[in-house]
Amino acid sequence: MSVIEKINCSNDVKALSRDELKALCEELRKLEIESIAKTGGHLASNLGVVELTVALHRVYDSSVDRIVFDVGHQCYAHKILTGRREKFSTLRQHGGISGFPKPNEAVDDAFIAGHASNSVSVALGMARARTLNGDDYSVVAIIGDGALTGGLAYEGLSNAAASGEPMVIILNDNNMSISKNVGGTSRLLQMMRIRPGYINFKKWYRSVLKKTPKLYKVAHKLKEWLKSWMLPNNMFSEMGLDYLGPIDGHDLDALEKAIRLAKDMQAPVLVHVITCKGKGCDYAEAHPDKYHGVGCYDEKTGVLSPSEVSFSDKLGEYLCQYAEDDRRIVAITAAMAGGTGIECFAVKYPDRFFDTGIAEGHSTTMAAGMAKQGLIPVFAVYSTFLQRGYDMLIHDVALLRLHVVFCVDRAGLVGSDGETHQGVFDVNYLSTVPGMTVLAPSSFQELHDMLGYALHDIEGPVAVRYPRGGEGEYKGSLVESEAVLRPGDDLTLVCYGTMVNEALAAAGKLAEQGIHAEVLKLGMLCPNDFSLCLESLRKTGRLLAVEEVCEAGCIGSRLLTAAAVKGVAIKGARLLNLGEGIICHGKVSELLQDQGLDAEGIANTARELLTSGVDEK
Amino acid sequence: MSVIEKINCSNDVKALSRDELKALCEELRKLEIESIAKTGGHLASNLGVVELTVALHRVYDSSVDRIVFDVGHQCYAHKILTGRREKFSTLRQHGGISGFPKPNEAVDDAFIAGHASNSVSVALGMARARTLNGDDYSVVAIIGDGALTGGLAYEGLSNAAASGEPMVIILNDNNMSISKNVGGTSRLLQMMRIRPGYINFKKWYRSVLKKTPKLYKVAHKLKEWLKSWMLPNNMFSEMGLDYLGPIDGHDLDALEKAIRLAKDMQAPVLVHVITCKGKGCDYAEAHPDKYHGVGCYDEKTGVLSPSEVSFSDKLGEYLCQYAEDDRRIVAITAAMAGGTGIECFAVKYPDRFFDTGIAEGHSTTMAAGMAKQGLIPVFAVYSTFLQRGYDMLIHDVALLRLHVVFCVDRAGLVGSDGETHQGVFDVNYLSTVPGMTVLAPSSFQELHDMLGYALHDIEGPVAVRYPRGGEGEYKGSLVESEAVLRPGDDLTLVCYGTMVNEALAAAGKLAEQGIHAEVLKLGMLCPNDFSLCLESLRKTGRLLAVEEVCEAGCIGSRLLTAAAVKGVAIKGARLLNLGEGIICHGKVSELLQDQGLDAEGIANTARELLTSGVDEK
Repeated sequence: MSVIEKINCSNDVKALSRDELKALCEELRKLEIESIAKTGGHLASNLGVVELTVALHRVYDSSVDRIVFDVGHQCYAHKILTGRREKFSTLRQHGGISGFPKPNEAVDDAFIAGHASNSVSVALGMARARTLNGDDYSVVAIIGDGALTGGLAYEGLSNAAASGEPMVIILNDNNMSISKNVGGTSRLLQMMRIRPGYINFKKWYRSVLKKTPKLYKVAHKLKEWLKSWMLPNNMFSEMGLDYLGPIDGHDLDALEKAIRLAKDMQAPVLVHVITCKGKGCDYAEAHPDKYHGVGCYDEKTGVLSPSEVSFSDKLGEYLCQYAEDDRRIVAITAAMAGGTGIECFAVKYPDRFFDTGIAEGHSTTMAAGMAKQGLIPVFAVYSTFLQRGYDMLIHDVALLRLHVVFCVDRAGLVGSDGETHQGVFDVNYLSTVPGMTVLAPSSFQELHDMLGYALHDIEGPVAVRYPRGGEGEYKGSLVESEAVLRPGDDLTLVCYGTMVNEALAAAGKLAEQGIHAEVLKLGMLCPNDFSLCLESLRKTGRLLAVEEVCEAGCIGSRLLTAAAVKGVAIKGARLLNLGEGIICHGKVSELLQDQGLDAEGIANTARELLTSGVDEK
Repeated sequence: MSVIEKINCSNDVKALSRDELKALCEELRKLEIESIAKTGGHLASNLGVVELTVALHRVYDSSVDRIVFDVGHQCYAHKILTGRREKFSTLRQHGGISGFPKPNEAVDDAFIAGHASNSVSVALGMARARTLNGDDYSVVAIIGDGALTGGLAYEGLSNAAASGEPMVIILNDNNMSISKNVGGTSRLLQMMRIRPGYINFKKWYRSVLKKTPKLYKVAHKLKEWLKSWMLPNNMFSEMGLDYLGPIDGHDLDALEKAIRLAKDMQAPVLVHVITCKGKGCDYAEAHPDKYHGVGCYDEKTGVLSPSEVSFSDKLGEYLCQYAEDDRRIVAITAAMAGGTGIECFAVKYPDRFFDTGIAEGHSTTMAAGMAKQGLIPVFAVYSTFLQRGYDMLIHDVALLRLHVVFCVDRAGLVGSDGETHQGVFDVNYLSTVPGMTVLAPSSFQELHDMLGYALHDIEGPVAVRYPRGGEGEYKGSLVESEAVLRPGDDLTLVCYGTMVNEALAAAGKLAEQGIHAEVLKLGMLCPNDFSLCLESLRKTGRLLAVEEVCEAGCIGSRLLTAAAVKGVAIKGARLLNLGEGIICHGKVSELLQDQGLDAEGIANTARELLTSGVDEK
């Protein structure tokens, strides 16, 4: 029996011997490499935190203590150790376990994760609840150095430091961007602080001096003054966090010792852990970026299964083309140059390329400043992450009607990343931004043409939204606000983006049964006076709007509003969309089928619409 | 002729003698105190930056150089010095000049301001545009220590430091919250760095060593190592910003000298300026919080004109009541305890009160963590500022259906603060948050009852939205989702919040002319099946929805969608709202009139709706 098979919950790890622990780490790595090769997932980040995860389960009981992951694409070992070993082969599959922490999946998953930089804020909230409720459990946040670039992390750290709440923040530093800053100071700090004597002194010092506030104040000032001369500060200690580290993130003993000390300190403590992405897997270690989020691969060689040409690839290609002729065009990414396809821009125009870190708010506002002074900034960003920039879209970009181009990638269902990453709110939130134009290409050619239109023909803010993955059957080039793709008299079928493929297929199925749907494609979601759609509705009286977005504020609703205001009589209407917008992981095709948004589902709803009466169905 | 009368543009300040400058500062203060007493506005913050503003205009030409204010409620001296002295008496009045920087008002206002913490990001964007376009102007950001608590500022500072772009960031530190941190280190830095010799050495060192990268690297490391032992760091220098300060913000000579040095350094430089809020006005200096944003007051004594009891006052009162009986209730504010009326909670329940600084994102996420562990967190926040928490609402609160209560203050038109502060997007953005309940009290009694309902009877996220100011004629207590306030057969008039007052008045006017509007009040904006509204529409066939929100995603649109899907025939519909949502400053009553949302305007639209035909009006 392998060691890993003995582990079914957090506490099982505590019973292992040193040799068994070593074996466990090896077995965890082996399982991850083998299994992710088949399911796809996040490889390099998970290989980097094997020892850290084991150490956390040595110290804490995740069924009671709250271990809050950040981003969450490093939770695989945690899942395997807490009762989900056998389900690990279903990772990210439809009906299987999620690739991210998910409280609905196991009590050991303390909180949801997906969008970066939230863990410290969540953990602080939990620590405060624990203290106010008089409960007795520990709270830990694990945050990567990447996530630390987000402003939310700073707000959380700053408030946590001031709170005095006992909690441990593990800084998982895997690309040395932080350690460079902390630099020479850290070794000295480690030497001084890792000694239990220092910790005990600190505990005593706090308990005694807090009882005599005045003395405490003087002593504190003296200590701070001394420390400022003796010990170079770092940002964390300056904020008021106790700092431990850096710790070798692959030395299980050192990790366990540091985490235990941090726990005992009964204060907000930051433990700085240095890990190596891809650890223990030669190809992942050599190319951690390439093996960050992957599809299937050969577990021996690491050779990745070929992937289709995507809208992201094309965006990069087209943007470089347009930038060649217009020096005003600059590209911005929030730590997603690869994902958004604009790495080629960085190579070709390094002076005009700006990676801001995980900082969607800053990216949006900086773009506004650039536009105000005559550049044409293009911010390539995932739909779900641009939610972080909602206020900046309104306040910094829209109020001055600045011409910033948002290339909104992963718009619609994203598939196996699941509910934290679905791009299902952008049509709504972008449409409420004053003066915003929203374009929705349905093919690569339309992406090309609409991008050019967005760059050079539109005033004010403009978004071009396109899905994850590639184009479908439809390869047309209709950039008009509205276009009739297929004529018909029985109902008006409105769609946009790559949903045109399902809509046209549905119309084909319906035609076989003698039902003639008029299929209209929207190229511009807003502004749009819907004149062609209304013309069609005057003829058919029945609307079926199919959209890969949440229902609130969807285009179908806007179209029905326009119809009512313009007095176009409606005999029946169905809005087929993603409802409130919480959609689990699975293949996009599976999710569309679940939601009745595949060709079959659309055809079914169309038939139902035609057979229903006029009032109160 | 006074000195101030000679100044009509930025460059006029440069011609003044030392004595004239001193007189100018006195005259600026006198004008501000006298004028704000009549118009209302931001007193303490503006009195604090008189010398800083004059110094900026000594060094820069605001018609060419870009001076980017943060928050913007400290721009009065700047406005007076740049051609708007005579219009200063129209400040914040309908048709007058804005209380915030506004590029549409003068070329000297480089950018919009209102929401905190954006200035560094904007300025960095401008500096990068300047450099890429080969232009020759300077860029300055002015950020307060309060705004520095926002994560956006951290994202901006971090990116600015890494950019190397020549730009000056003025840290206007007026409550010592920063200087405490920087502490003893700052004096030493000032001594060393303020000397021109040091600056010249640094310039030389950069120019020579940058040509020999390897030597530069070694020298740089050596320098950093030496500095880390010799000079205690602060957060700014650690980020890579050059740091100058602290400077006495009321010493014009020192300010001018420091800003000139910073400008000459041709790098991202932070100048730390210590100012005193309310400087030169005894009552404002003694109570800077009380004299932050004020209505009219007696300029001699500072006695403020009495203000009406507001929804904010009542929120604080009711929340304290509910908290008495339920220890799980905790209150959160993002630096707005006074504005949101929950100062009383802080006094009564200090352990259960959390002020996070200007950190709406963190507040939302921390509340989620609290709710997950069994507290009932109440985040009191202005509608316009909660936009910063949009992503956290979806990702951290809604995906787990956590019970966080949002008390959304200043929902609807806010009046004299203008377009940056209007709370006109929340109905839309809150309604798209999965599982969110949105309640809209129309009276104090309804606020009381709905708050109790929100705290104890609703699962998942819930928002209670209410306007700035007090209640109107309507003082009812109808907490139902829908309620008929006045029966009628001719049209269905739908409203919510304090808009019921205008709607009822309009219905009264219409009744005098024999037109009978059925007035329906919505207590719950979402979820809502609109059953009463649809029943009314079946009778009247005509909808008039009046809302103090932007059109996209408004409730009228949702109601028309429900009607179409349920097959309720509509003969005519008008959505009266704020269109795209950019609404200038002025009294709320004036703005409502402008938008046709006062009783007269509503009645007019109702008449127009009744006389229009069925198709294509």
